[in-house]
Amino acid sequence: MLYLVGLGLGDETDITVKGLAVVRKAARVYLEAYTSILLVDKDILEQYYGREVIIADREMVESASDDILHDAQNVDVAFLVVGDPFGATTHTDLVLRARALGIHVTSIPNASIMSAIGATGLQLYNFGQTVSMVFFTDTWKPASFYDRIRENRNIGLHTLVLLDIKVKEQSLENMARGRKIYEAPRYMTVGQCASQMLEIEELKKAEGAGGVYDEESLAIGAARIGGRTEKFVSGTLKQLCLADQELGGPLHSLVLLGRRTHELESEYVREFAVDKEGWDKIWKRDYEGKQ
Amino acid sequence: MLYLVGLGLGDETDITVKGLAVVRKAARVYLEAYTSILLVDKDILEQYYGREVIIADREMVESASDDILHDAQNVDVAFLVVGDPFGATTHTDLVLRARALGIHVTSIPNASIMSAIGATGLQLYNFGQTVSMVFFTDTWKPASFYDRIRENRNIGLHTLVLLDIKVKEQSLENMARGRKIYEAPRYMTVGQCASQMLEIEELKKAEGAGGVYDEESLAIGAARIGGRTEKFVSGTLKQLCLADQELGGPLHSLVLLGRRTHELESEYVREFAVDKEGWDKIWKRDYEGKQ
Repeated sequence: MLYLVGLGLGDETDITVKGLAVVRKAARVYLEAYTSILLVDKDILEQYYGREVIIADREMVESASDDILHDAQNVDVAFLVVGDPFGATTHTDLVLRARALGIHVTSIPNASIMSAIGATGLQLYNFGQTVSMVFFTDTWKPASFYDRIRENRNIGLHTLVLLDIKVKEQSLENMARGRKIYEAPRYMTVGQCASQMLEIEELKKAEGAGGVYDEESLAIGAARIGGRTEKFVSGTLKQLCLADQELGGPLHSLVLLGRRTHELESEYVREFAVDKEGWDKIWKRDYEGKQ
Repeated sequence: MLYLVGLGLGDETDITVKGLAVVRKAARVYLEAYTSILLVDKDILEQYYGREVIIADREMVESASDDILHDAQNVDVAFLVVGDPFGATTHTDLVLRARALGIHVTSIPNASIMSAIGATGLQLYNFGQTVSMVFFTDTWKPASFYDRIRENRNIGLHTLVLLDIKVKEQSLENMARGRKIYEAPRYMTVGQCASQMLEIEELKKAEGAGGVYDEESLAIGAARIGGRTEKFVSGTLKQLCLADQELGGPLHSLVLLGRRTHELESEYVREFAVDKEGWDKIWKRDYEGKQ
């Protein structure tokens, strides 16, 4: 049996009781460690589980999945995923491969950022499609997120923006020379995300296709959701460009508000506002009653 | 401290290790029992926790929340919610009330249907806003879900439809006479949902405002997601009208497919199809490559 076990979002104790029992009795335990991270290190997990944990990087999961699935017709293999097992496409792929090999699959769900974002106080019913934001470079600024946010905002919905993480990345030079030397991990912050969003708005405006949001659009920055040090900061996109220090360490996410809002949502979210009076002013002007 | 503890979607072992520790040491333990249900009874929970569990119905949470929060400035109160604590508006309200009373609040996330629906094999990125379906009566057939599905489908997105549950409801007669006699609980099935969806499509078509979906639109029925007896059936809306027997007991949910799909999604989902050849034919005709 292949068990896909969700670990939740915080530390080693966010696994479910059911998931922990699976991990403790499995023949092999893999940890998918490239689409997200827990807030604790591998050795803490190993100590907590009383088991060796094999780190599964992108290369292993995408190119050597048969190693992971080896003999899983006969023994139990646990594949641990931060958040919920079906948060990322890769895992659907692994299940399809297991099916083809005649291996039974059971998944053990857990908290995902896609639903835990409800902790901002925004109603999950009012969210549209989720988008991703990648680290821009001088020559690569993919803006497909912009059109999806436009679709959400056209119908009044909030947008959850998931932020890029880079783990086990090689520099171009090291890659070209075949040197397996990896850069330090990087986690995008709310400030970087807000600033990239405003950069794309400027570019789109210059092309005559802008106007999806602006510096005064309201948003919420979230850090370490579901963890013991969870933190929210709300404000305009411009204010959130400077909120990284207050938010603290990774992982960060951002929510851009839609106009389809409920009074309770504002009451809940303004508690985290950089500037409560400014929040109220923009809320009344651009959001309240704008169904 | 007020702890909002997510219980996940299946049985007593779907609580997180962190959540279980909170429940075992709290001064009082409440279970919110009207927006969703676990697949096990209260006495199993009590035995597992080693604690008395107080059932909190809608009336208690909405009208007597100060009883729940009594003395939570000084002692720990655990408020258990099936799924994730922030799935329903009511709990945001409880947190606002706690804040007003100077009570600290911590939430412990868990799997929610909003993200666990990824177990269908559909990518969570391709879902639009979630809608609810209530039990129709002869005179009350609320159709606001229809316009929201239209919004989702216009931009190619899947729609998760959450199905009504009725617990502790009084008949009109008993209510009028002030008799506290309650009806047996009712849980909407995928078949009832699909049939109500098609009923509204007919009504809208007669008004000249139809065409959002039809009998041949592809959908997935899901039962007991995250539980040990989780079950999926995929097919057309017409086929799903007759899928209740195969799906089995509550809780059910339904996903209506959008056209923005990935080949992997079809491969994954067709495994559950009532009629695989029919699925492939409609997929090719109406979905494949229709970005």
